Order: sequence, then structure tokens, then C-alpha cells
Amino acid sequence: MDFDFVTEDQLFLEKLAAVAADLAAIDEPLANDIPAARAQAAAMLTRLAAAGYLQLGFGEPTAERAVVQLAGMETLATGAHSAMLMAAMSTRVLGRAIAAWANKAQRGQWLTPLIEGRALGALALSETCLNVDNDPLETTARHRGETFRLSGKKSFVLNAPLADVFGVVGLIEDRPALFLVPSAAEGLSVEPRVRTLGHDGLWIAGLHLRDTTIADGAVVEPPSDIDLLDQLRLWENEVLMAQALGLMKAAYESACDYAKSHRTGGRPIIAYQEVGFKLSEMLTLCQTARLLAYRAVWTAAVDPRAGRSLNWCAKVFCTESAEQVIGDALRILGQKGYCAGGPAETAYRAVKLTQIAGTSTEIARVKIGDAALGYSF
Amino acid sequence: MDFDFVTEDQLFLEKLAAVAADLAAIDEPLANDIPAARAQAAAMLTRLAAAGYLQLGFGEPTAERAVVQLAGMETLATGAHSAMLMAAMSTRVLGRAIAAWANKAQRGQWLTPLIEGRALGALALSETCLNVDNDPLETTARHRGETFRLSGKKSFVLNAPLADVFGVVGLIEDRPALFLVPSAAEGLSVEPRVRTLGHDGLWIAGLHLRDTTIADGAVVEPPSDIDLLDQLRLWENEVLMAQALGLMKAAYESACDYAKSHRTGGRPIIAYQEVGFKLSEMLTLCQTARLLAYRAVWTAAVDPRAGRSLNWCAKVFCTESAEQVIGDALRILGQKGYCAGGPAETAYRAVKLTQIAGTSTEIARVKIGDAALGYSF
Amino acid sequence: MDFDFVTEDQLFLEKLAAVAADLAAIDEPLANDIPAARAQAAAMLTRLAAAGYLQLGFGEPTAERAVVQLAGMETLATGAHSAMLMAAMSTRVLGRAIAAWANKAQRGQWLTPLIEGRALGALALSETCLNVDNDPLETTARHRGETFRLSGKKSFVLNAPLADVFGVVGLIEDRPALFLVPSAAEGLSVEPRVRTLGHDGLWIAGLHLRDTTIADGAVVEPPSDIDLLDQLRLWENEVLMAQALGLMKAAYESACDYAKSHRTGGRPIIAYQEVGFKLSEMLTLCQTARLLAYRAVWTAAVDPRAGRSLNWCAKVFCTESAEQVIGDALRILGQKGYCAGGPAETAYRAVKLTQIAGTSTEIARVKIGDAALGYSF
Amino acid sequence: MDFDFVTEDQLFLEKLAAVAADLAAIDEPLANDIPAARAQAAAMLTRLAAAGYLQLGFGEPTAERAVVQLAGMETLATGAHSAMLMAAMSTRVLGRAIAAWANKAQRGQWLTPLIEGRALGALALSETCLNVDNDPLETTARHRGETFRLSGKKSFVLNAPLADVFGVVGLIEDRPALFLVPSAAEGLSVEPRVRTLGHDGLWIAGLHLRDTTIADGAVVEPPSDIDLLDQLRLWENEVLMAQALGLMKAAYESACDYAKSHRTGGRPIIAYQEVGFKLSEMLTLCQTARLLAYRAVWTAAVDPRAGRSLNWCAKVFCTESAEQVIGDALRILGQKGYCAGGPAETAYRAVKLTQIAGTSTEIARVKIGDAALGYSF
Repeated sequence: MDFDFVTEDQLFLEKLAAVAADLAAIDEPLANDIPAARAQAAAMLTRLAAAGYLQLGFGEPTAERAVVQLAGMETLATGAHSAMLMAAMSTRVLGRAIAAWANKAQRGQWLTPLIEGRALGALALSETCLNVDNDPLETTARHRGETFRLSGKKSFVLNAPLADVFGVVGLIEDRPALFLVPSAAEGLSVEPRVRTLGHDGLWIAGLHLRDTTIADGAVVEPPSDIDLLDQLRLWENEVLMAQALGLMKAAYESACDYAKSHRTGGRPIIAYQEVGFKLSEMLTLCQTARLLAYRAVWTAAVDPRAGRSLNWCAKVFCTESAEQVIGDALRILGQKGYCAGGPAETAYRAVKLTQIAGTSTEIARVKIGDAALGYSF
Repeated sequence: MDFDFVTEDQLFLEKLAAVAADLAAIDEPLANDIPAARAQAAAMLTRLAAAGYLQLGFGEPTAERAVVQLAGMETLATGAHSAMLMAAMSTRVLGRAIAAWANKAQRGQWLTPLIEGRALGALALSETCLNVDNDPLETTARHRGETFRLSGKKSFVLNAPLADVFGVVGLIEDRPALFLVPSAAEGLSVEPRVRTLGHDGLWIAGLHLRDTTIADGAVVEPPSDIDLLDQLRLWENEVLMAQALGLMKAAYESACDYAKSHRTGGRPIIAYQEVGFKLSEMLTLCQTARLLAYRAVWTAAVDPRAGRSLNWCAKVFCTESAEQVIGDALRILGQKGYCAGGPAETAYRAVKLTQIAGTSTEIARVKIGDAALGYSF
Repeated sequence: MDFDFVTEDQLFLEKLAAVAADLAAIDEPLANDIPAARAQAAAMLTRLAAAGYLQLGFGEPTAERAVVQLAGMETLATGAHSAMLMAAMSTRVLGRAIAAWANKAQRGQWLTPLIEGRALGALALSETCLNVDNDPLETTARHRGETFRLSGKKSFVLNAPLADVFGVVGLIEDRPALFLVPSAAEGLSVEPRVRTLGHDGLWIAGLHLRDTTIADGAVVEPPSDIDLLDQLRLWENEVLMAQALGLMKAAYESACDYAKSHRTGGRPIIAYQEVGFKLSEMLTLCQTARLLAYRAVWTAAVDPRAGRSLNWCAKVFCTESAEQVIGDALRILGQKGYCAGGPAETAYRAVKLTQIAGTSTEIARVKIGDAALGYSF
Repeated sequence: MDFDFVTEDQLFLEKLAAVAADLAAIDEPLANDIPAARAQAAAMLTRLAAAGYLQLGFGEPTAERAVVQLAGMETLATGAHSAMLMAAMSTRVLGRAIAAWANKAQRGQWLTPLIEGRALGALALSETCLNVDNDPLETTARHRGETFRLSGKKSFVLNAPLADVFGVVGLIEDRPALFLVPSAAEGLSVEPRVRTLGHDGLWIAGLHLRDTTIADGAVVEPPSDIDLLDQLRLWENEVLMAQALGLMKAAYESACDYAKSHRTGGRPIIAYQEVGFKLSEMLTLCQTARLLAYRAVWTAAVDPRAGRSLNWCAKVFCTESAEQVIGDALRILGQKGYCAGGPAETAYRAVKLTQIAGTSTEIARVKIGDAALGYSF
């Protein structure tokens, strides 16, 4: 048992924190200028590839590497949460799916540009709402000679207006597969950007596919013992728990700094017990949430079945703890916190996405309850 | 004992709900156009005066009237929360202070326009932060013959860029008084509007006073047994708890409607137990928070001393319950909730102000704890 | 609207508090001596009848009377929680059912002794577990000429070892009815007393009925539009929320007294903010829970349909708040709280029954969720 | 980084679970028969020494060993929580203090019997209440030639009626030291056993010392940079968090087993979502609490300063989470849970001690708040 990172990983995470600070501008609200946003995203990917971040997780797969990857996402989210989600949907979700299930030719064609930061990817999965996942997919592919024709509607696709390539989940004869579709493909259209509560630097939109032609080499099918949708959700959950960890850390630090540097009644604010108490609860939640998330990805690497339950537990705990810590940070920051643009204010608006995307809290509770039937604690 | 409104009051509240719906546009983000915002505010005040809302609380003061006033503010906040705060700071806080402590000539000059909706008022109280109130006031008035000269800085003054008259709290020889200052007064300047997390239709800014001349008739001093700052905070708290009740009701109804009208997996969303549970908890919190707020203003009218403790209890409970209910509503609404502009989304951004303004949650806890020393439950 | 009791009711409640203090000895653990326990129970009932308590609720049924009855139960529970439950199961549940649905002859025979304190009653409803109520009743009555023969097993019947008369819920051809059975009836046997976590003065046991003969005059059938089981649970819930209010009040007062009267580091314990905070949260919960319970019985009297939802909300909120307040009281009391026998220690052990008896928290949440489908908040 | 135990440690913990099951009888209520209790305690210590448990922590001190020791205490507490506390106060607190600060002769005389299970030790620290630690110690030792004379009163000393040796904390000229006093020492008397809410198998009592003679070799003084009281509290906290982990695990497993093995309405109870949800929340809390506790002892071994903050965080989180999980377990168990004697019922009564002993939750919050001033998260 060992709770600490080796020195090399610590140094990597420290460097990454510096990169995150440089990328913070991406979190700022952007005019609806798609070319400018694309340029900004491309610069970000170049930077992250140079820092060795995009490549994480595509080498030797060990439990320790899994924790470092999560910590890396957390570090990036602390400083630049929109940028982190943008890059993570591209490599940590879409890239990971290609790496896991695609053949060598497909990996060369689709994965390499993602990892090298030359292309931005997006995963198109949900069709109606995010938080209840009981509806069957309606996006379907029909054979037409050597190719497929793919039709359907996807909603709330992260990165959609900027992406170079989409991983579209659809059915081939009732069995889900992942279709790799370039943004220029005929029949593919992206809806206008959705205005959202938070994530000012993220571009989210719906996607339409009307009889889009998909070459055979652009279809990725996981082995028959893999539940494609379930696995993609588990990976999304890892991204979202790291996002939650980063958001809560940024808000906690902002509140802590404020409480130390501002004075009232002749004392620093932190000297007031009502403030100290809140900070102590916040600190405890930050630490426990992080431990549980690390534990979850560790376990997923050494025992995938047990890892699923832990993934849901950690998704719920991290995203709910994050909301609480960030809400408390705003209270400590008072009037300053209510002003737009600070780390706690943007985190407060962003944290809700971590709860409703991936496996939603409500669905996760159902799944954990079911899993507990057979779970040996 | 009687928990129900008489028919006349019920009818009044129903009419007010219709007015609130008409005023909802005020909650929408506004370009930084002060003349347009002034015109919009003036139209709102005219409408509220015509509806008999602004006059509430300035007639016969009974406990039952106090509850109707709170319910009126709650009703207005449900439909138009920025408009409610704007009007409430003008009449329910500044107007109430003038009505309570001013002489007849002052009431005629300053109060009548507020009640008739011909002028918008603002209270300028806080100087540094909102949530810790240990610093002594630095705004002071010095005698200069028949008049005073008032100097100081106030922060985060609601309505400041639009107000016709300010109630500025300052010291005359270490004793607080309320100075009534027209917005056109020499030496008074309003800082640029602050961009805030929520309340898109509210105008908040700092205020500077540099040797502003105050005529003797513009000074309101409460009787010596009244703690001016404390009393103003108690009135603000009533406004903020009504705001919280309105916000949580709007969010609850939005989530409930959505859960009834949207289907997934062949059933309405509300049929899923994970959703029904949340709604049941939310409903319970809405009801208890409202009861406690009503009880608090009732008690303040019949037993002011006991009313203070209850005011703090209700301020904390309503504003914290509101945050929880609204956060849960966003979860039920899922992707729709994360889109900007809906009642739950705007409520989520607005609710933080109810916690940090007035007596903050942290300070309220301290005060309740102290009061409990002698409190007979 | 009026939140206060009239003077006459206030005086009644004050007298009742004195009676409760006298009955506190009943809460103490008793040796397994049934004759002694019967004598003690008889003396208690005589005392409560003399105080006018047992008769409450059997006169003119108004919403205001309903609140006074609840407040009366709360007052008794504050001082003597086992005695309160014992008397309430006898008159407030069994007596109420007879008063509501029995004919005049039945009321004379069975209800009068309960109200006059000459007999102790018990309700035999649950058959397997308390907290999930999905199993159909298995206790059934078969016609045998002019009489019925009743057979079945009931579990966890409060008062069973001491009761003079049982109200047994069983089926006549799939429709539930209430069978009034004297404890001496042939074929009726009471199992040994169950040792429980709390309620040291309460006697709980299972009940067996083997072909017990029931005369026609001993069968009470509610009108066809009444759901017998549901209505009994609602009445039980009122008893249990009053019990919870009493328990939490006793624990709060115990902690508050201790914090005022004990000193450490030269100051009374209450002067420590960590203690004052807790007390302020506890006080708020006590007040809100009480308001919601009062509101629920008020509404049940004026609008039974809306009253059902509120009954469940109040049951959940009061019993969960009580657990929290009592748990916090033990923390404030520290070492003294961990010693056996104090008001907070006995309340901590007793409060769990209020959650699992009646409509359990889990079932209540389901029902509220369902009700919310059509509920107009 | 590595979250798993090595095989050898896993096997040790499995064996210990079997020992714990054998010792469960100690948790049962005992007549007030001190000789019988002593014999039972002696047998327990012999068993634990044979299992290699008492020796834990007295060899090579590594961070990994620290985690195994905590896991060992947790395992023992899961099956036999009174026994665990009894043994832990003897070796994990008193023994650890002697090992850390005593000279070789003292260790041979006092520590060896404790580790070998031939003597039971007790720590006598608190003087008035447990939960607020602001009072200075009043137990003092005065020089009398080669020896000391020790006088004072200690309250709520775990193991006191059964202990062979006491570690009494007292002052030598305002500086705290640890006095090792055999139970047969003249002037030492033990008060009658205190009846407590939980821990039926534990013996707790006050201690009086009246001019008890202490040889020079019986005084243990830590180095001047050690805060004796603080350090003892930190060690107690580790014992109490392990106790809390064990209690919550026992309650969780009891509820989970019940929910799987009992049916209602034709389905196992766990199939009801209201039950599955609760179990999922409970499982998450069990896992996070354990991770935080492990992390805390790990950190204490590698970075004592950071370890102090984490110790308090983990103490609060584990003991509060335990109360919540155990309370929920009782709800799932329903009527069965309210019956005396089951694992959840005894855990519910025992868990309060983990909050009020050691550094109480309230004090811990203060300390964490203070530490956060300089803490780098």
C-alpha cells in the first residue's frame, strides 16, 4: 500500500498545473465566433500534446498510470475546466474507445491525430435527455453495399461545433457500434451552440445525421462481452469526477486565500470560527472525494467488475461533494463570490454538468443499489 | 390558531401572481443601458402600485398583515425575482425605515413617492464585505451649520445605478443614522454596474459620497432603544427569505412540470422512483421553509424579541433549503436544466445572494447561538 | 391566519406538562412483571383521564382541536415518552377508529372504557416487518353462523402484554375490517415481551389468534370509500410525529440546560461557538418540525386529501429531524450524554421507532412522490 | 501508489476476522461481576496475543505497517467492538505511549506485559467532560524525596474497573507527564462502573488518586517538543476511527444481508429502490471513510505535521459517517433493527462514544479550521 505519487509523476503534475494556468483564458466567455474558437482549441491541443498530457493512458496500462491520468485531468480542471473537458472528450473518451476497440489501421487513421493534438474529437451518445437513460437508441446504420448509411439525432454533444471528428454511437441491427464520422461528412450538420449555465469556454450543440455514408473502416465494434454504452459512460464518469475534483479544489483555494488575506473587525476572516468550520468541512470533503476517485480508477484497472460499482460511487460522491464545497466557498467569499468571473463563481455554474452528464446521480444510485445485491464489501 | 389566509387575501395573492408573470421580462439580461433600465423599472413600479402591492404594510400593522406581505413578496419572487428585489429594497426596506422612524414631513416628502411607485429607493448599508459584519461603519456625517456633510463609500448597493433616492447609513458622532440622499446630490457618485452570478435584471453598484450636503430634514434617527443596523438587517432578512421561497417554488414547479410532461422508457419521468423521491424531499422543504418564514414574521409582530431569533432561524433555513431544492430541480431537469434561461437555472444563480446578503448564514448562526442562551423554546 | 393557541389551550398544555413530569417514572426500565406493569398503566390512564387528556379529540372535530390534540401528545411525550405512546395507541389510534366507524352500541361498549381510562387498548396491524408494507394481510375471518372465527399472527403489537382489548385488522372476504377482541378471548395469546432498543416502559409483543370467536357486534367496518389500513397509518403517523417532537424537545432542552450550567475554560459551554452553532441548528429544526406537524393535522381536518401528502411529509421530516437533534444533543452533553438514563440518551434510543413504525420513511417517500404527480403546491 | 494490501497482510486480516467472531460474546451485557469480567478480559488478551494482534505496531514503524494496524483494529471492531476498545486502550494507546517515550527499563517492566497480553492497561486522561478540552489538568504530582505523590480525579476511564495498570496524565510543575500506576497502588480507588448507552462489554469508571506514591521509574516524560496531551488524543483518535469503521461495516453488512434474505410483496427487500438507494449511499460512505482513515495514518507516519490535520478530518468524517450508516441500517432492518441485541442495534448505541471521546467533533472542527490557516491542500 502506498498513497503517494513517485517523484517523476509529482513533477509532471506540477508542470501540468503551470500549463493549466496558461490555458485559463479558454474558460472565459467567447463571442459566437467558431473560427476563433477553433483556433483557440487547436492551440490548446498543441500545448497539451507538447506537455505530454494527451498521450497519457495510451502506453502501458497499469493501475498506477490510471491514477496519474486522473490526477492529471484534475490538475488541468483546477486551472482551466472548460479546456479540460474539451480535451478529455477528445482523447480520454473518444480516443480511449478507439484505442480499446479499433484495429491497427483505424488507430493509425483516427487515434494518432487526436493524441498528437492535430484533431479535436467529440462523442455523440445521448439522444434525448442526459439524466435518465432508459430510452433505446434511435440512431441506426443500414448496410448499403460496402458502406453504411447512418441516420439519427444526438443532443448536447460536447465539442460539436468545433470537432474534426465525431464518434457517433448508433445501432447496427440492434447492436451498438461506434461510427467515426469527419465533421465534413455529407449529411452531418451541427445545430447552433447551446447557451449553458456554466462552462463558458465549452461548445455544446446537437448533431443531425441524414443518411451519412460511413465506410467500413470507420466502424468500431467492441468485443461481444463489452457493453459499449455502459463502458463509454464509465469513462465519461472518470472525466467528470476529475472535473469535479478540479472545480472543488479551485473553489476551496479561492475561499481559503480570501479568508487569509481579508480582514474584518481587526482579524483575518479565517480567524472567525464560523469560517474556519466551513473550511475544515470543505477540506475534508476535498480530500475524501479525491481519495475515492483515485481508488475507483485504481480498482477499475485491477478488477474491472468491482471497479464499476466504485466508479458509480465515486461519480456520485465527487460531484455532490463538489457542489457542496463550491457552494460553501461562495458563502465565505460573500459579495466577492457573487461577482461574476471568479474561480468559485465559474465552478458553481460548471459543477452541475458533472452531476447530470455521464451516469447521472439518480441512475448511479439505482445501479449501485443493484450491484450491492452481489457486492462483497 | 389558523393556518389559512382569508378569502380576500387569497384573491389578492392570485392577482399578484398574474402581475408577476407580466413582470418576468425584467429578470432577463439587459444591455448596460441605464435609461432603458430606468424606464423599465418605472413601468414596473407603476404596475405594482396599481396592484396595491407597494402599499402593503403601510396601513394598520397586524401580525396577519405581516404574513400577507411576506406571501406577497414570495408570490412576486416566484414569477419575477429581480423585480421583486428591486421593489422590495425600495419600499419594504427603505420605505419601511422611513415609515417607522421619520417625522410626518419626512414621510410626506420621501415615503409617499416610494409607495406610489413614482420613485425608486435604495439602501446603502454595507461598506466592505457582506457576510461578516464586524467592521465599524466608516461613513460619517459632520455638522456644518444647519446641515451635515456626509462622506464614505458603500459597496454592493442594490438598485444603485437606477435609484432616485438613497438611504445611506452613516454615523453622527458614533451613533448610526439614516441619511436620505437624492441621486442627483452633489458629491454622490455611483460606480459602474457589477456583473453578478445571478439576478440578471438587478442593478448593483458601489456608491461614493464626498462631502455631500444633507439638510437637517433629510436625517432620520431611530429612537435610542432601536439598533438601526440590526433592525435594517432584520427587514432585509424578511425580503431575502421571501425571495428564497419564491425561487425555490419556481424551481420546484419547473422540475415537477418537466417530470410529468416528459417520458422516457415509456413512462413519465416522475414515475421513476429516483425522481419521485427527490420531488418529495423538495416539496417537504418548500412547505417547511414557508411555514417557518410565515411564523417568523408573525412572531416579529406580536413579540419582537422572540421574533429576532426566529428571523435568523428562518433566514438560514429558507435560504439553505432553497439552494438544496433548486440544485435538485436542476438534476431532475438534466440537460434542459443546464441550458441557460429557465426558471431553475436563473434561480440557481440567484439563490446565493439570499444567503450572503442580509444577516449571512454564518453570522445568523452566531446570533442564534447567543440568543439561545436566554431563549425559552 | 393565527399561529398562537388561545389562552385556555395554553393553560391546558401547561397543566399537561406537569402531569407528564409525574408520569416520567413509566419511562424507566421495568422488570418483566406484568401485573405490576398493568397496575402502573392503569394508574397512568386514570391520571390522564382526570387531566382531560384522554377525552381530547372525541368532541367537536375542528382543525383547531386537531392541533391542540397534537400539541397535547407532544407535551406528554416530552416528559414521558413511553407513557404517551401507550396511551396514544389506546385512544388516539384504536379509540379514534372506533369513534369514526363504529355504531352507537359499539362505541358505548368499547370506546367509553378507553376514553375514561378504565381499559387499555392496542392495535394489531403489522404482520411481518414494519417498514415495507407490500404484503397482503393474512389474518382472516370466516363466517360461522352469527359469528366470525378469526385466525392470524400479528407482530410487534404495542401494549400487547398489558392490553385489555385489541383492535385486530383482518380480512373478511379480501376486505379489511377491525375486529375488537378482549384480551381474555379464547384462542388469543400474547408472545413474550420483545426487548427493544428504546422505550423501556413500553410493552411490545406478537399476537396469535387461533379460531377466535368474534361476535357480530365486535366487527367495525369503515365505509366503502375509506382505505382502512391507510387511514390507520395516517393516525399512527400523527402519534409518531408528536412523539418525535416531544423527544427532540426533551433532548434539546437537556443539552441547552447543560450548556448553560456547565463551565469549561472559565466560560459556560454555550459560550463556545461550536456549541452555540449546534444549538442554533437544533432550535431551528425543532421549530420547523413542529410547525409542519401542526400544519399537517390542521390540513387533514379541513382538506383530507391534501392532508394525506402533508401527513407523510411531516412524518418524515419530524422523525428525521428528531434523530438529528437528539444525536447532536448527545454530542453537546459529551460524557454525560453517553451515560444511561438521561433525557437525551433515552430519546436517542426511542427515536428510531418513530421512523420505522407507521408509514416508514422509505414508504412515505414513495407515497409523496406518487402524490406529487397530481399535487398542486 | 498502491491501494491494496500485500497477500501476507490480507491473510493476517482474514485470520483476525475469525478471532473477532470468537470474541463477540464480550460485547454482550455482563452482570456487575468484576472477577468474571477480569477473567474474560484475560482470556481475550491471551487470544489476541496468540493471533499476533497485540504486537502490531511495536516493530519496525513504517507507513504501510500503520495502515495494517488500523485495518486490524477495524477488523476486530467489526466483530467485537467492546473487546477492540478494551485491547486498544491497553496497547494501542497506553502501550504506544510507553514505547515512544519510556526508557528501556520502563519498557521492559510496563510494556512487555501489555504486549504479551498478561496485563490490561488503561489511560486516565480526562478530568471533567470529554468534549471540550479547555480546562487545565488538576491532577498533580509533588516531589517527596526520591518519589512523587500523585493526587487527582479522572473521569470516564475506559477499562478502569478491570485494569492492572493505569497511565495517569498529571502535571509536574505545570508540565504534563505520564505516571504508571498499578491498580493495587495505595491511595488509588476506582469508582463504581458507569452504566452507558452502548459498549455493553466495556467497563468505564472514574478514578481517584489520593497522595499515591509514584517511584521515579514510573514516570514517563516525552521530549520537550512533544505535546503529550495532543499526541495521546491523536492516538485515541486512530483507535476511535477504526472503531467507527468497524461499527459501520457491521451495521452495513447486517442491513445488506437482511435486505437480500427477506422478501415482501414477492421480492427481496433489496429489490425495492428505496432500500437499494440507502444501501448505495451507505456503501459509498463506508468506502470513503475507510480510505480517509487509511490515508490519515499513512500520512502521520510519513509527515507528522500534515498527519495531524488529516487525523482530525478523518476522526470527524469516520465517526459522523458511521452514525449515518448505522442509523440507516436500522431503518432498513425495521422492526428487527429495533429489537435489542443485533449488530446494528449495538453499533447504534456504541457509535456515539466514537464522536465524544478523543478529540470531539466540535473541537476537531476548531483545530482543522486553525490548521487550514497554513495548510497547503
